[in-house]
Amino acid sequence: MDAAIIPPGPLVALDYLGIAVFAISGALVAAEKKQTLVTFIFFAVITGVGGGTLRDLMIGAPVFWVNHNMTLLVCVACALLVWIFSKARLAERAILWFDAIGLAAYSVYGAAKALRYDVAPVPALAMGVMTACVGGIIRDVLAGEPSILMRPELYVTAAALASALYVTLVMFGAPPLLAALVAGLLGFSLRAAAIVRGLSLPSYKG
Amino acid sequence: MDAAIIPPGPLVALDYLGIAVFAISGALVAAEKKQTLVTFIFFAVITGVGGGTLRDLMIGAPVFWVNHNMTLLVCVACALLVWIFSKARLAERAILWFDAIGLAAYSVYGAAKALRYDVAPVPALAMGVMTACVGGIIRDVLAGEPSILMRPELYVTAAALASALYVTLVMFGAPPLLAALVAGLLGFSLRAAAIVRGLSLPSYKG
Amino acid sequence: MDAAIIPPGPLVALDYLGIAVFAISGALVAAEKKQTLVTFIFFAVITGVGGGTLRDLMIGAPVFWVNHNMTLLVCVACALLVWIFSKARLAERAILWFDAIGLAAYSVYGAAKALRYDVAPVPALAMGVMTACVGGIIRDVLAGEPSILMRPELYVTAAALASALYVTLVMFGAPPLLAALVAGLLGFSLRAAAIVRGLSLPSYKG
Repeated sequence: MDAAIIPPGPLVALDYLGIAVFAISGALVAAEKKQTLVTFIFFAVITGVGGGTLRDLMIGAPVFWVNHNMTLLVCVACALLVWIFSKARLAERAILWFDAIGLAAYSVYGAAKALRYDVAPVPALAMGVMTACVGGIIRDVLAGEPSILMRPELYVTAAALASALYVTLVMFGAPPLLAALVAGLLGFSLRAAAIVRGLSLPSYKG
Repeated sequence: MDAAIIPPGPLVALDYLGIAVFAISGALVAAEKKQTLVTFIFFAVITGVGGGTLRDLMIGAPVFWVNHNMTLLVCVACALLVWIFSKARLAERAILWFDAIGLAAYSVYGAAKALRYDVAPVPALAMGVMTACVGGIIRDVLAGEPSILMRPELYVTAAALASALYVTLVMFGAPPLLAALVAGLLGFSLRAAAIVRGLSLPSYKG
Repeated sequence: MDAAIIPPGPLVALDYLGIAVFAISGALVAAEKKQTLVTFIFFAVITGVGGGTLRDLMIGAPVFWVNHNMTLLVCVACALLVWIFSKARLAERAILWFDAIGLAAYSVYGAAKALRYDVAPVPALAMGVMTACVGGIIRDVLAGEPSILMRPELYVTAAALASALYVTLVMFGAPPLLAALVAGLLGFSLRAAAIVRGLSLPSYKG
């Protein structure tokens, strides 16, 4: 793999955090639906890597999990963890918060990777949102659940905030790591406010 | 971007027409479902660029909206227009007709772009149909609506007619612009007949 | 097309077998839903080429059906066959068995193609599963059917067995053709056991 494709340390950490968190959320949907271990793994993989895969295809990057084994193994491990430990049900509230961290991390990471591939600013913003949200959307479609897209809760919006902030800050010359921290924190805060206070967007009144 | 990738004037016009019309149809589905502005934008983008994105991935072209900002901004503007003006509800019949224009335009444009990338005739035909229909199919799946695919109405058929006609005419040596006009007009006419007279295909009788 | 991309004889046969079998299963779903001939064709194409298309996009190979006409024509022919002959309903049991052959053939073929593109072992295994299962998953989502993914029956598991076995045998130095035979036969046998004896995986007991 080209060294330029691999982001420096902090971004790699964001990436694995996002993968693990989303893989767990995929496996939890399989658990809710009383599925088999194979379906747990399938949902963990598709939710963990779905958004980033689409992003890589669109920006013309090699798909990030194809040239090594680790990414898929992390997803499989997350599926096994949920299969073994989820019975305790301690996870429900926790997963909402992990998902919020993953959402912020992935939005920033997706936008950063797109900019490194010379994607224009507006599509780079879209790549951040896509990286963070598409895995969960595919998960919901396959599980026959109403998609997160269709709920007024601030979810896609928090991803868009983190992604837009990162792109804007970098365009104004901020150091990428600082931009990532600020954008990630604010995106996470908006999602946290949505979880704690049920903050939501106004719906269309026709 | 490579100049060879950008089609000449009339095809660019077809392209933006298709994007705007499909983006509006995506936002209208969000309006029907009483969604938020963020979902309006998401549906406008996915319906506007979904088919063309898949086409570009398959023919090995750079994805058309990644290297500039304009395409996504057009989709966002369409979402805003629907959010602001749709209350008047004047649009319902109009949108059916705009969609018919977009269907014909996109079928021809998709087939033409595929031929320019040396795709074989039958897959080029499929690329035209895909460019015209896949955005709407994804829109319907995400909205939990029965897909246009499952209705007997002439819709995919009109796209296939426009696309097949364009490919055939060009293979017999017709000038591309003339072929585009003839194919687009006939595809549009078939769709118009379906709208006005409820023309439909016979269903399978098992 | 690059000669290195085209697999030797037996793999080409596996490929066309997989395409035809899955195309027929797609058309049969359209028949069950009393659809039109156009929808028959659409479902035949999407089920026949869906998994392999996604695989090719992810491993960076040219999409396999884009540079010649034959693949799509095979799908169209299968759709026509089902449209004309399915009334006799002799096919229902037969198709389950054809599908089992296609599942085994496609898992091996997908993993083999991925290895030829220097994909790492674990993702190569995933490519085999994806090639065999994604077409059917898209078919079910579009038809509004509960996906094969959500049933406890051994289906994805049989694909994973065939794919994993092929990758493992080849890594231990087995001749590819022998590895393909052994892996395909065992994958098919597991699926056959699931059909005959209703073998299934235990579901999650929360």
